[in-house]
This record gives sequence, C-alpha cells and structure tokens, in this order.
Amino acid sequence: MEKETARIEGFSDGVFAIAITLLVLDLRIPATENNEPQTLVHSLLTQWPSFLAFSLSFFSIFIMWVNHHKMFKQIYRRNTLLMFANGLILFLATCISYPTALLARYYGTPSATAAVAVYTGLFVLINLAFNLLWSTASRNRKLLRPAISDAAVRKIGRNYQYGLPVHLSAFLLSFCWAGGALILCVALWTYWAFTSGRLDLPDEKPVNVP
Amino acid sequence: MEKETARIEGFSDGVFAIAITLLVLDLRIPATENNEPQTLVHSLLTQWPSFLAFSLSFFSIFIMWVNHHKMFKQIYRRNTLLMFANGLILFLATCISYPTALLARYYGTPSATAAVAVYTGLFVLINLAFNLLWSTASRNRKLLRPAISDAAVRKIGRNYQYGLPVHLSAFLLSFCWAGGALILCVALWTYWAFTSGRLDLPDEKPVNVP
Amino acid sequence: MEKETARIEGFSDGVFAIAITLLVLDLRIPATENNEPQTLVHSLLTQWPSFLAFSLSFFSIFIMWVNHHKMFKQIYRRNTLLMFANGLILFLATCISYPTALLARYYGTPSATAAVAVYTGLFVLINLAFNLLWSTASRNRKLLRPAISDAAVRKIGRNYQYGLPVHLSAFLLSFCWAGGALILCVALWTYWAFTSGRLDLPDEKPVNVP
Amino acid sequence: MEKETARIEGFSDGVFAIAITLLVLDLRIPATENNEPQTLVHSLLTQWPSFLAFSLSFFSIFIMWVNHHKMFKQIYRRNTLLMFANGLILFLATCISYPTALLARYYGTPSATAAVAVYTGLFVLINLAFNLLWSTASRNRKLLRPAISDAAVRKIGRNYQYGLPVHLSAFLLSFCWAGGALILCVALWTYWAFTSGRLDLPDEKPVNVP
Repeated sequence: MEKETARIEGFSDGVFAIAITLLVLDLRIPATENNEPQTLVHSLLTQWPSFLAFSLSFFSIFIMWVNHHKMFKQIYRRNTLLMFANGLILFLATCISYPTALLARYYGTPSATAAVAVYTGLFVLINLAFNLLWSTASRNRKLLRPAISDAAVRKIGRNYQYGLPVHLSAFLLSFCWAGGALILCVALWTYWAFTSGRLDLPDEKPVNVP
Repeated sequence: MEKETARIEGFSDGVFAIAITLLVLDLRIPATENNEPQTLVHSLLTQWPSFLAFSLSFFSIFIMWVNHHKMFKQIYRRNTLLMFANGLILFLATCISYPTALLARYYGTPSATAAVAVYTGLFVLINLAFNLLWSTASRNRKLLRPAISDAAVRKIGRNYQYGLPVHLSAFLLSFCWAGGALILCVALWTYWAFTSGRLDLPDEKPVNVP
Repeated sequence: MEKETARIEGFSDGVFAIAITLLVLDLRIPATENNEPQTLVHSLLTQWPSFLAFSLSFFSIFIMWVNHHKMFKQIYRRNTLLMFANGLILFLATCISYPTALLARYYGTPSATAAVAVYTGLFVLINLAFNLLWSTASRNRKLLRPAISDAAVRKIGRNYQYGLPVHLSAFLLSFCWAGGALILCVALWTYWAFTSGRLDLPDEKPVNVP
Repeated sequence: MEKETARIEGFSDGVFAIAITLLVLDLRIPATENNEPQTLVHSLLTQWPSFLAFSLSFFSIFIMWVNHHKMFKQIYRRNTLLMFANGLILFLATCISYPTALLARYYGTPSATAAVAVYTGLFVLINLAFNLLWSTASRNRKLLRPAISDAAVRKIGRNYQYGLPVHLSAFLLSFCWAGGALILCVALWTYWAFTSGRLDLPDEKPVNVP
C-alpha cells in the first residue's frame, strides 16, 4: 500500500533541518572593540555557555528527528488529529532556539534556574506531543503499516515510555540543581541514541532485489 | 499519468517549511542588563504579544500548507498562470513574518489597529492568490487529476469559499476591534483544520497492495 | 534511462527555496520609539524601497528557479564542469540578498547608482553562469535527455539568448538612469515568465496512463 | 535492494543547503551614516575579508556536499554509528558560519592567527567525522551497495586520504602564516573538485532504458 504520509514527512524533515541549522545564528562572534589576539581568545573562552547550549539543542533536535523518522516508518495513513499532533511537534521543535538562547545568556548567572526550567519545560511539552502522535497512530491500526505486528507497536511505545517521566523530573530538578537537570536530559537522549537501532523491525526489511 | 507538478510541490514545501521556521527569529530573548531571576521572569511575561504573534502565524502557515497540499493532490499538470499563481502564494507566505513582527511590537499599544489591519490585509491577498490558483486549475480540467469527478472539484471549491469573505471581514473589523479581527481569523483556520480531513476524496485512494 | 541529476536538483531547489525566503529578513519593521498610529503608518510608507527591493529579488529568484527547472528537465547526466557551473549559479543566487539590502538602503539617495550597478552587475554574472551550464550540457549530448531533438536544444538556447545582452545593458544603463536599469530587468524577467510555458517540449510528455 | 538511507540523505541535503545559504547573513551591508557614493564604494571595498570568507566557506560546504553525496551513493544501509557519524558531520557543517564570521571580522588584524586557527581547526574535526563515516561504512560491507567491488571501496578511501593530513598541516601553518593556511585548504578543495568526477564507478551506471 502506498504511503499517504510522504509529503508530511518531507515537510517535517524540512522544518527539522531548518530548526537545527538556525540554532547557529545564536552563536555570535565576540563584539570586541580591540583586535588583540589575547582579547579574542579570552572572549571565545568566555562564550562556553553558548557553545554548550548550541551543542545540546543540536543533539536534542537530531534525536527528535531520528525518533520522528522511526515512528513515521510505521505510519502509512493520516487523519486530522495525526496531522495536527505532527504540527504541534514541529511548532515546539521550532521553538527550541528560544530557550537555547536563554540558556546561552543566563547559564552561570543567578537566573540559570529560570532559563533551565523554561528549557526543560519545553521538552516536557515536546514529549506530550510525541505521545499524542504515537497514541493517535497506534490506537487506530488503519493508520499504521499494514503488516505491522502488535509486538512491534508495543516495542516502539516502550522505547519512548521514559521520555515524559525523565523530562518531567529534569524540569522539577531544574529548580534545585540546574546543571543536574541538563545532565538528566543528555542521559535520556544518549539512551535513545544507542537504542534507536533496536527499533529497526525485522519484518520491515524489503526483500525484493533490483 | 505522471504528475508534472512534483518539483513545484517540493519547492513550495521548502518555502513553506522555511517561512514557518524563520518566524522564530523574531522571538528574541529579553535584553536585560541585570541577571536577577525576577527581572528575567518579568521580562518573559511581558513578551506575551511576541509569543501570541508567533503562534498565530505558525498555525496560519501550517494551515496554508495543508490547504496547498490538498489542492496539489488534485493538480497533475501546470501552465504558466498556475506557476505564477503558486509563486504569488509563496511570495505572500514568505511576507507573513513582517506583519507578525509588527503585531508582536505594536499589539497592546495605540498602533494595534494599524498592525492588525496590515496582518489581516495580507491574508486577504493570500486568499485572492489561492482563489486564483484553484480557479486556474479547475477551469482547465486538463490540469487536474484525470479521474477527478465534478463533485470532487466543487467540494474543494466549497471548502474554501469562506476564506475571502471571512478574511475581508477580519480586515474591516480590525479598524474597530483589533482583538476581534484576530479571533475571526483563528475561528476560520480552526474550521479549516477540522474539515481538512473531509477533502480526502474516496476515488483517490490507491488500491494496489505491494 | 534513470536521471543521475536527481540529488543535484533536490539540493539546488533547497538552496533556491532558502535564498528566496531569507530575503524577508531584510524587511525590518520600523524602529520607532513612540507608539502613535500616525508615526507607524508614516514609517511603513517611507519603507517603500525595502518592499520594492524585496519584491524584485523574490521575483528574480523565482524566475531563475523556473529557468533552472526547465534546463534540468533536459539534463540527465552530469560531469565535473556541470556540477561546478551549477554550484556557481547557487553561489550567485545566494548572494542576491546582499545587493537587495543595498538597493533597499540606498535607492532614492545619491548612492542609488552604485547600488543599482552592484545589483545589475550580479545578474550579469548569473547570466554568465547559466550560459556556462547550458553550453556545458548542450555541447556534450551524452549529458542530455536521450530522445531530445536538435530543435529542442536550440529552442531552449534561443529563449535565454537575450539574458546576457539585456542584463549587460541594464548594468551600463544603471550609471545614467538607475530606475531605467531596474525597469529593463523586470521587462526581461516578465518576458521569461510569459515564454516559460513554450519550453514544454511535446516529445517529453509522458504517454503512459496509470 | 532498496536504499534504507533515502531519508537520511534528504535530511542531510536540507542541512547542507541551509548551512550554505545562511552564510550570506554575515554579509552585512556597510552601516554608513551619510549617503555619498564615494563613501559607499569605499565601504564596499573595505569589506573584502567578508566576501573572501563567504566565498571560501560556500565553496568548502559545496565540496563537502559533493563528497557526502559520493559516499552515500555507495551506502545502502545504516546502523546507529553511521547515523551519528553523519549527525556529527552535519553538526560541524552547521558550525562553519561561526569561524567564517571570525575570519571576516579579524582577517587583516593582529588576531588573524587565532581566527584562521579556529577556521582550519574546524576542518580537521570535519575530516575526522568524514573518516569515521567512511570507515564505519567500509568496515561493515553489509552497509554498502551490494554489488560494489573492493577496488571501488579502496578508490573512494584513497581519494579522501589527503583530507586529514592537509587540513592538519593547514591548522599548524595558521600559527606562522595565516594566508598560507587558507591557500593550502583551497588547494585541497580544488583537487577534490577536479577529482570528484573520477569517483563515478563504472559498475553503478544504470542500464535499464525506459
């Protein structure tokens, strides 16, 4: 059966690719008045929160794209709710550059808590949107790949079950230990990076040789 | 029959994806001098017109993309007029970030009327461009999907018939009640969101199983 | 025969789509201190050179994309020179936003001549790059669509033969009449818009019905 | 056998296309107060380091895309490591705009060494990432195109073997002769431009005529 979702995936890939690349616009070179090498090197080193925030957000959007890709490999048809759950994911992915800039500006200041709380809070919303997408798709089997097995559907759901509780914990932790909240997020994203290969279901491998 | 319009759709999807993602560049973090948490939280809260304008415009471009998608599922061939009607839609979609920034800056000030009038006025033009696209395609049946029925063509036309009068009303309303004009637009876009599923015509469903 | 150029076209479409959309970033809202409606409306009206420059450049990149599309419909294979002629076109298309910003800033000032000369000068370079692309492709028939006729190759070449002399004339004219140089460019682009349909060669129409 | 990597290539093309186009945002028009033509022409000429940095980086990303394209023509399957080697390439490609802006700002000042060292240092990292990608793919033959020969795999490896040593030399050279380091990079990229055609393997040519 032909996939109805090809143009949705293409549009989503476009939005993810742009959102991930626009992050670099917040890496601004130091605005030093003098041209001395020591000043430049020193200014570059004091920009570390910007590089950290850029790297974190790039990695998080890349993982979101991998997860999105894994889910849409199993989604073959769409309905209105699925279209808008996907639209919500794209909206929130586009937003990431805003708390990234907050993090770059305020990490290491007394306002770090507020910045990290906004940052991790956005990921709580992103997880809710991904859960809405996958529950919409998996509740209505007609939207999924025809030959998919129950075990495969459950396997995908299980892989993402830690998303919401971990991000929620990171959000709460941000109020007492900002750095710890970021470490928790990175730990989850790394887990997803390592387990993403396990989601390649054996029954989806194409068998026709050219 | 092969679709002649594949590269037009790909290019249009690219422009929509970029236009929708660039909106976030106008969400600038507060430029506060001090680093106190209260100052940051207060500055974030006073930015609400920016968040509102960003969300509205993101949603409106997403709906435009869905509508564009629905129309091009029925368009198989192109002529010069269709190419330029589509180019006009892309031009106006790209422009949306400008009145969005106006809205973010002036909503809640004595200039709200002017900002909302420019914003809703752009949507009047966008509707004229969409009407030009669909009337070009539906007047010349050779441009449409070969097996399409008259009922299907009329069904699509009917779904968008409210676009021009509602946006025109919002434009006129903006001069006496700026907030009401925005509510009117959101109501129309929500109607389109809910009815977009109805436009999946039964006779376009692929029947060949892999 | 399979097209070897699919990924080149995809990448080129991406660059054109981004270049055309980034133009809007130079449409900045007026930076007025007070919030009076009269001030806002007045500031908007004095921005007309920005709107003019944006519209001109959007239209010119759209026409470039249409022309690029027409040529690549006939190009099936690639060699190193063709790859880099295409790279040069993308480089120059990306550059357009720079003289567009110059035009927006200096049109209507004593520096209009310099701004329009840079603007039209860029289009002379773009034409040289397009000529390099098409002469590379048409000199080496193995790069073109297998069934293409000599008449079709000449027809495409003829359609673009005015490009270089007209843009060169516009560049020279810019030194004595800046506005006239822009009018000359728009006249050529409009000619291309109207004749682009004529380049759909009858022998490329697919004949297999689904 | 169907390629599993189509969506990865599409996403990568998107990121390359955006990263290459965003470079133009650092070409800012001169911020002169007066509107005299001589001032404008003089300001344009003093911006030459910006034009040089923009051209260099555009050319380098274009070559990276060509190389990426050549490698992925031979890669048919993916595993987790390959996904993340590719993610690392995209991350570093996105970063290029930052040292480009440094180069534009500090080339010709006493800080040129630091700017060129950061610039060439990034290309050392990019080469390590490309080596990781190709060694991951070529060590595990199941990831490659089924019919690929050992000679073809070695040929691709050989073409990129100069990448790491030349960029490392450029990085070291930057500390004593900043201009020389850039010339070394351009020489390598030009070599890759001229040899990229040689990587079209004879056994990958499609033979089925429509």
